[in-house]
Amino acid sequence: MSTAPTLQAIRYTRGSLQLLDQLKLPGETVFMDVKDCDACWTMIRDMNVRGAPAIAIAAALALAVELDAVRVSLETAGAVAEFVATKLDHLFTSRPTAVNLGEAVHRLKASASACAAAGVPGADAAEKIITECEAMLAEDVAANRAIGKFGADALCAAVGKPSGTPLRVLTHCNTGSLATAGYGTALGVVRALREGNLLEHIYCNETRPYNQGARLTAYEIAFEKMPGTLICDSAAASLMKQGKVDAVVVGADRVADNGDTANKIGTYNLAVSCAYHGVPFFVAAPVSTLDPSTKHGNDIEIEVSISHLPHSAD
Amino acid sequence: MSTAPTLQAIRYTRGSLQLLDQLKLPGETVFMDVKDCDACWTMIRDMNVRGAPAIAIAAALALAVELDAVRVSLETAGAVAEFVATKLDHLFTSRPTAVNLGEAVHRLKASASACAAAGVPGADAAEKIITECEAMLAEDVAANRAIGKFGADALCAAVGKPSGTPLRVLTHCNTGSLATAGYGTALGVVRALREGNLLEHIYCNETRPYNQGARLTAYEIAFEKMPGTLICDSAAASLMKQGKVDAVVVGADRVADNGDTANKIGTYNLAVSCAYHGVPFFVAAPVSTLDPSTKHGNDIEIEVSISHLPHSAD
Repeated sequence: MSTAPTLQAIRYTRGSLQLLDQLKLPGETVFMDVKDCDACWTMIRDMNVRGAPAIAIAAALALAVELDAVRVSLETAGAVAEFVATKLDHLFTSRPTAVNLGEAVHRLKASASACAAAGVPGADAAEKIITECEAMLAEDVAANRAIGKFGADALCAAVGKPSGTPLRVLTHCNTGSLATAGYGTALGVVRALREGNLLEHIYCNETRPYNQGARLTAYEIAFEKMPGTLICDSAAASLMKQGKVDAVVVGADRVADNGDTANKIGTYNLAVSCAYHGVPFFVAAPVSTLDPSTKHGNDIEIEVSISHLPHSAD
Repeated sequence: MSTAPTLQAIRYTRGSLQLLDQLKLPGETVFMDVKDCDACWTMIRDMNVRGAPAIAIAAALALAVELDAVRVSLETAGAVAEFVATKLDHLFTSRPTAVNLGEAVHRLKASASACAAAGVPGADAAEKIITECEAMLAEDVAANRAIGKFGADALCAAVGKPSGTPLRVLTHCNTGSLATAGYGTALGVVRALREGNLLEHIYCNETRPYNQGARLTAYEIAFEKMPGTLICDSAAASLMKQGKVDAVVVGADRVADNGDTANKIGTYNLAVSCAYHGVPFFVAAPVSTLDPSTKHGNDIEIEVSISHLPHSAD
């Protein structure tokens, strides 16, 4: 086992928050101080922090920091609830399409309203909200560690090599510490394999067109000194053909009721290659990604970014 | 049909050669004068001209231009043969691994030697070599037009739509006017379809990691105002799943005796997607690409460029 540190992109202690600036990756490792919700709003809008779960946790912790700083001035739970609602409503405008951010806003506003309705003292309400924000961080990391453990076991079982044999795994996009509160979902499975001495190699797709794999996942792999190789997306099939990939694990944007999964472009391509080569293909995601209200994958609206070629070069 | 011009990357008339500077594409369309073999040597080495057939034709035409300028001073066929051998041997060092360039060098040196052995006058020998260089240009374009015609018919037949129905075709890498003497191989098939009003849409893979599709093929498509879309390589499978691709046509670096084909990374990935979705997959290549001495695709040596991740981010 390597003695490399585990990447921690969110540094939080009561009253203090720092976020790893993802815009500077992979060239520079710089943490930005997040003193209040306005600073966090700008960081979300400017993409210094990205990844749906990571954004939600960053917003909650920014609220916790600012609430901690002003709590003495909020004498009633009503004042706390008003403060929380104002700050969160504004934070939500930084990325209105982020589902996890919306859920976090809803949950924390509801808690603050409940405190106000119960008429608890302002100090107690503030403490409850701050504690709940901190719990969201811990819950997400704990969920990811659980996904990692389940996933590692599932991959080993599906590959079917003798117990304890390290696997060669391929992943797509970024689903690691940089996309979540920590540890990651699909990359959490890879981390769990490694912790169990069960990771021989991790292949990382560059993930065109925005290179989340090349910029972020490769950074995480290098940071933790995992044995890894960055490949272009279209090379995955060739690696499978050569028998170099034991299993593929990816994250999910959304999972429909029938199990159909929407995820970054290139995920379906990987799944087809896995089907063709008989390589086990896994989707690692938290329960919050399941969407039983959507019956079928075809019902999931997909963001499409296509560049039609200009009909001129004159 | 559009009235857009056909892209001509090699402009040659007796005594004059200009080559489209591929390093400036797709941003700028600049032709470079090629006054002699030394100028061509530098352009090949610096990649202003690339593509195996294109390099060979460029070298032959540079020789023709320089030979035309000095022919009056070459009094014997022996002097012509010595001039030709010296110039070609040097040109060959610009890209020693280019098979087509080696073949062109061999062919032209043999012709010059035959003239010397036959004791023809120097002027006749020079004329014969210049004419042969010019013939190589015409032969390659004619071969590509034939490939285009055969290919267009074959694609239409394989897709099996009612006669005259335009096709939606997907291609990979650059196999067009910028890679050959003109017209292209796989992209020649696309051009032939278009000339027959049989092209509904051309999808062009960006072709990671060096983006020959995004830089060169997309430029050709835009230059000729074809209806086209640039996609990231991993999006091809999704398009097939949506039924938007009638056929795929790609070029080849080498075809083994059993039909196995070596080509740019991503080609195998495309072939797997085609197999999975029942989309016809074609390889368009001249006879010179066939290599019957290689029995099986596994015997073809492949250039691999893999970037292993550094085990540090400290």
